[in-house]
Amino acid sequence: MMRKDQIAKHYRNLQQQVCQKLETADGGGVFKTDHWTKDIGEGFTMVFQNGSAIEKAAVNFSAVNGVVNENMRKALKIDEGQEYFASGISSIIHPRNPHAPIAHMNVRYFELSSGHSWFGGGIDLTPHYVNKKEAGWFHRELKNICDLFSPDYYPNFKKWADDYFYLKHRDETRGVGGIFFDHQSADDDLAFEQLFAFTRDLTQAYPRIYKELLNANRDKEYTDDEKQWQYLRRGRYVEFNLLYDRGTKFGLESNGRTESILLSMPPMASWAYDFQPVAGSREEETLNLLKKDIGWISF
Amino acid sequence: MMRKDQIAKHYRNLQQQVCQKLETADGGGVFKTDHWTKDIGEGFTMVFQNGSAIEKAAVNFSAVNGVVNENMRKALKIDEGQEYFASGISSIIHPRNPHAPIAHMNVRYFELSSGHSWFGGGIDLTPHYVNKKEAGWFHRELKNICDLFSPDYYPNFKKWADDYFYLKHRDETRGVGGIFFDHQSADDDLAFEQLFAFTRDLTQAYPRIYKELLNANRDKEYTDDEKQWQYLRRGRYVEFNLLYDRGTKFGLESNGRTESILLSMPPMASWAYDFQPVAGSREEETLNLLKKDIGWISF
Repeated sequence: MMRKDQIAKHYRNLQQQVCQKLETADGGGVFKTDHWTKDIGEGFTMVFQNGSAIEKAAVNFSAVNGVVNENMRKALKIDEGQEYFASGISSIIHPRNPHAPIAHMNVRYFELSSGHSWFGGGIDLTPHYVNKKEAGWFHRELKNICDLFSPDYYPNFKKWADDYFYLKHRDETRGVGGIFFDHQSADDDLAFEQLFAFTRDLTQAYPRIYKELLNANRDKEYTDDEKQWQYLRRGRYVEFNLLYDRGTKFGLESNGRTESILLSMPPMASWAYDFQPVAGSREEETLNLLKKDIGWISF
Repeated sequence: MMRKDQIAKHYRNLQQQVCQKLETADGGGVFKTDHWTKDIGEGFTMVFQNGSAIEKAAVNFSAVNGVVNENMRKALKIDEGQEYFASGISSIIHPRNPHAPIAHMNVRYFELSSGHSWFGGGIDLTPHYVNKKEAGWFHRELKNICDLFSPDYYPNFKKWADDYFYLKHRDETRGVGGIFFDHQSADDDLAFEQLFAFTRDLTQAYPRIYKELLNANRDKEYTDDEKQWQYLRRGRYVEFNLLYDRGTKFGLESNGRTESILLSMPPMASWAYDFQPVAGSREEETLNLLKKDIGWISF
C-alpha cells in the first residue's frame, strides 16, 4: 500500500477510536460525523456539543493535496510551488467545569512532490486553573510515551511546545505545554515506521489521559466568577489559534473547510479590558505559572 | 506647530469629545481613562463596560513612532527600514441589544522618514440583524460627509470598505460596510489640510450617527436565541480582527500595548459548529445581505 493510503486509512480509523473513547469518558455526548469533500481532498469532522462534562469535543481527520502557495510556505516553512499531500488528526476538548483543562492533540503526515516527507504533532494541556500535580502527571505520561522511541524526544519536544504555544503579545504560554514536534523526516523507511508508530501511540494515549484529568475535576463545585475566568482563558485560546496556530493558517490558506478548521474555537469566550486577578488568588497563581521552561515533570 | 504635534493634539482632543458624546448617548456608562507610555510612544485608552445600552465602548488614541519592520511592511504595504510616526483614534461599540449594531471608527495619520505622509480611516457598521432602512440611512450619512470633500470619496471608499471588511474564509462581509480608505497622500500641504479636516468630520459624526441607531433599537425586546445569535456574530468579528485587521496587526507588530490593541474584542462571543439558520428567518436574511457591492444608499 502506498504511504499516503496507509496513513489516511490508519488515521481515519484512529479518529473513530478516539471518538468512541471520548464518548465513554464523557458519558453523555455522542459524536456527529460530517463527511466533506472538496477539490483539495476530503475529511471527516466529528463533533459533539453539550455533553455531560464536555461542552465541546471535536476530532478532525483530513487527507488533502494541492500546490504549496506563498502563505503556506511561510506557515509551514517549506518551499513554494511543490505539490503536497497532508493527512492528520486534530482534536480539541473544552470541558464545562473550569477546574478541568482544555486539551489539544494533533498528528500529521506531509509528503512533497520533491520526495521529502515528515511527521509533526503533539499533545498539550491548557488548564483554566493550573494544578501543578496534574500538570506533572500529564508531562510524565507524555515522557513515558516519548521514551519508548527516543530519550531525546521528551526534552526536545517539551521545549518545542513551550516555544510554540506562546502568546508573544501577552508574554504568556497557552497553558502548561506538553510536547510539540514538526518536520521529523520520514524520508527513510525505518524513520517513517517509527514516527508513524509514535503518532499512533500519542493519538491512542490522548483520550486515556484526558479521561483521568476530566474525572478528577468534573464534579468539583465552581462559582460564577470561576466560570467567567474560564471564558477569559478561552479568549486567550482564540487569540492563539487565530494569530499563531500553524494548522489554522495552513487550513485557511489551503482553502480547506472553514467549519472544520475553526472547530477548535470555544463554545463561549470573553474579553474584559485589562483584567487583573486579585493578589494571592488562584487566578494570579495560574498566570504566574504560564511561563516557558518550567520543569513540570518534577511536580 | 509641527504636523505631528498638531495631529496628536487634535486627535486626543477629539477622542475626549467622542467619549463625552457616547456617555450622553448611553446615559449610564462612564469612561475610565488609562494613560500609557512605552518606548514607542504613548496613548490614552478610554473604555466603559456595562453601560445602560452599551455593553462595551472603547476609544483609543495613540501617538507612536519606531522603525518599520518586515511584518509591518506587509500589513501596511510600506517600505521596511524607515522610521515612522503614527497617530490615530480608533473606536468600537458593542451594544447590549442584538437589534442594535456594532460600530467601528478609525482615523489615522502616518509619516515616514522618507518624507511621505498619508491619512487612513473609515467608519463601518456591523448589525447583528441587518435592517436595510437603517443601513441605507447610515450610508447616506457617510456619503453626505464624503461629498463635502470630493464626489469620488463615497463611491471609492464604500467599495474599499466592501473589499476590506470581508472574511474570505466565510465568504461574508463583516457587516454592511461603510467607508474605508488608506494611503491618501498628505505630502502636499493643501491635501494634508483637507484630509485632516475630513478625518475630524468623520470622528465627530461617529457618536452622532451611533446615537441615532442605538436609540432606534435599545428598547426593542429580544429573545435568548437572538442574544445567542449576537454572540455568534461577535465570534465573526473576533475572526476578522485577529485574522485580517491591519490596525491589530500593526499594533501587535509595533510592540504596542496589547490591552489597547485588543480593546475591540467583544465582552462575550461564541462559536457553534456549522450553525445553519432556519429557512426564512431574520438570521438567514442577514447572512444573505452580508455581501459586497450592495447599493445600500438606495434603501
